[in-house]
Amino acid sequence: MATAIAPANIAFIKYWGMRDTHATLPYNGSISMNLDACLTTTTVLFDPNLPDDEVVLAFYGQAPQTAQGRARERVVQHLDRIRALAGIPTRARVDSTNTFPADAGIASSAAGFAALTLAAVAAAGLHLDTYELSRLARRSGSGSASRSVPTGYVEWYNGDDVGSYAESIAAPDHWHLANIVAVVDTSVKKVGSAENHRLAVTSPYFQTRLDELPARLDAVREAIAQRDIARLGPLIEVDAISMHAVCMTQVPPSFYWNAATMAVMEAVRTWREQGVQAYYTMDAGANVHVICEGHQRDEVNHLLQALPIVQFTIANNVGPGARVLDSAALVTDTN
Amino acid sequence: MATAIAPANIAFIKYWGMRDTHATLPYNGSISMNLDACLTTTTVLFDPNLPDDEVVLAFYGQAPQTAQGRARERVVQHLDRIRALAGIPTRARVDSTNTFPADAGIASSAAGFAALTLAAVAAAGLHLDTYELSRLARRSGSGSASRSVPTGYVEWYNGDDVGSYAESIAAPDHWHLANIVAVVDTSVKKVGSAENHRLAVTSPYFQTRLDELPARLDAVREAIAQRDIARLGPLIEVDAISMHAVCMTQVPPSFYWNAATMAVMEAVRTWREQGVQAYYTMDAGANVHVICEGHQRDEVNHLLQALPIVQFTIANNVGPGARVLDSAALVTDTN
Repeated sequence: MATAIAPANIAFIKYWGMRDTHATLPYNGSISMNLDACLTTTTVLFDPNLPDDEVVLAFYGQAPQTAQGRARERVVQHLDRIRALAGIPTRARVDSTNTFPADAGIASSAAGFAALTLAAVAAAGLHLDTYELSRLARRSGSGSASRSVPTGYVEWYNGDDVGSYAESIAAPDHWHLANIVAVVDTSVKKVGSAENHRLAVTSPYFQTRLDELPARLDAVREAIAQRDIARLGPLIEVDAISMHAVCMTQVPPSFYWNAATMAVMEAVRTWREQGVQAYYTMDAGANVHVICEGHQRDEVNHLLQALPIVQFTIANNVGPGARVLDSAALVTDTN
Repeated sequence: MATAIAPANIAFIKYWGMRDTHATLPYNGSISMNLDACLTTTTVLFDPNLPDDEVVLAFYGQAPQTAQGRARERVVQHLDRIRALAGIPTRARVDSTNTFPADAGIASSAAGFAALTLAAVAAAGLHLDTYELSRLARRSGSGSASRSVPTGYVEWYNGDDVGSYAESIAAPDHWHLANIVAVVDTSVKKVGSAENHRLAVTSPYFQTRLDELPARLDAVREAIAQRDIARLGPLIEVDAISMHAVCMTQVPPSFYWNAATMAVMEAVRTWREQGVQAYYTMDAGANVHVICEGHQRDEVNHLLQALPIVQFTIANNVGPGARVLDSAALVTDTN
């Protein structure tokens, strides 16, 4: 038995479009920061007495419930990968809890599959390093889970199965950035990210986005290295708009933004004219992630909370990656 | 002296990006319908006693006022073109009134410069046909004014100065389409269309949009010929999103949508799932134009009026093009 905790992450350069659905390979590299307040905690117990895997998920604000259908199947398939690595047939009980709303563009599946990966690997007695753990988390089908494994600021590389892994490009204490999630919608997505990743290639703008990304990845990496919010912020916004422009021009189109999303975006632009260095980004959901430096975190949080269309906020600092809680000795290097 | 009336028009395939700012040549052809309830009426009086041109504009809901600065200059420059054609030096008094809010994405300048073109040409004693009038209206700097000259459904062709003109591709009675303008914002635009047309080329997606347009123009032309709303509607929406994706990815980006825009778009998609064949498009502004067939016009209008974020609506049928009111004999063919 082992318990692991893993953060959600917010991408500065988005992962959009899946090149290989079997191995979960992206079309492009991506860069993110881990969120220290959006966490999933998962316990895996391999038990020879279990006739089948049991998966119990406690979503934010809801009682724990046994997973069914596709949700259960994805967990079982991931346990199968880890059982194959460990050479064990044993069934497992999985218990997982979230500190934030699932399925609303806050990378709940990234945190979930990163935590599952580390807990199951430790419980199975395997010794894997961050490179292997990030590749394994990637193969869960939730590719961005690979970015929730290393610490702090993380890059996930495009590549083949061996070359597509995530690593830390800066530790949390390199630069105190904050990410305030402005939650405007906690409803479940109509179209899951996985399906939409397959549709990315139907956008006429998708190839142009890919052509642009190498230069933008370089620029974001440099801006993080130089702790330059005035350079990083506009790049984050440009990349978010670029990704959503692809979504909206897919066949059929996907619209993740709603009225509240637009209102928050407009508010952030207005605050910026007034000297608040805050920038927005949206994942595959309506909620808005506002990035700023740590010294403006409380100000930005209060501004967002004062907007009538914001239900609540989650204020994050840059956080560590996934880690095993009670079996640390079994894992050689998780960060 | 002559008075002309001209309609605004709503583009199914948008004009976005100006290839030649002197001759007002677009990068792509566009297709629109004229709006029978969004009209500008303009009277031009050439008066040898006037020391200078006088331009009086009565915007929607406001008292008439003498135009100053850039607004006056554009009218004077257009009068200069017509004076040069007529070989007269005479100064003019121009009086213009609108039935709809200006500067809010309802093509007020298209209606305005089409009406000015016809009134000034007639007042100057010139005889020009629709081809010449549409080219002349185009050269005003408000390129889509060329589409407000011919009747009904109109295509404006890409081309050189001689080849870039507008002509009717179907009369109003060919197909009774309606366009309900859902007005959510009557404030003046922060960035004018003319400036933004110059920025279009800075979007990484602009060339891809241009590459797609010949096929989309063919499809829209066919859908109009076949009176096929189920085919036309999705093409209209795709083109609007494509244009706004270009705007949002320009350097610097332009965001025309606001929270209310998104809410109306979402409402239209919901109504469609319930059997209302309505489709949205947005010009360079936040207001939403909803297109449907005539038999659903009143239903769509009531649905839009019931949305709290809609200030008021303007219900249009397909209308005739620009026409001279009191000097028709001077113009050989205005439709």
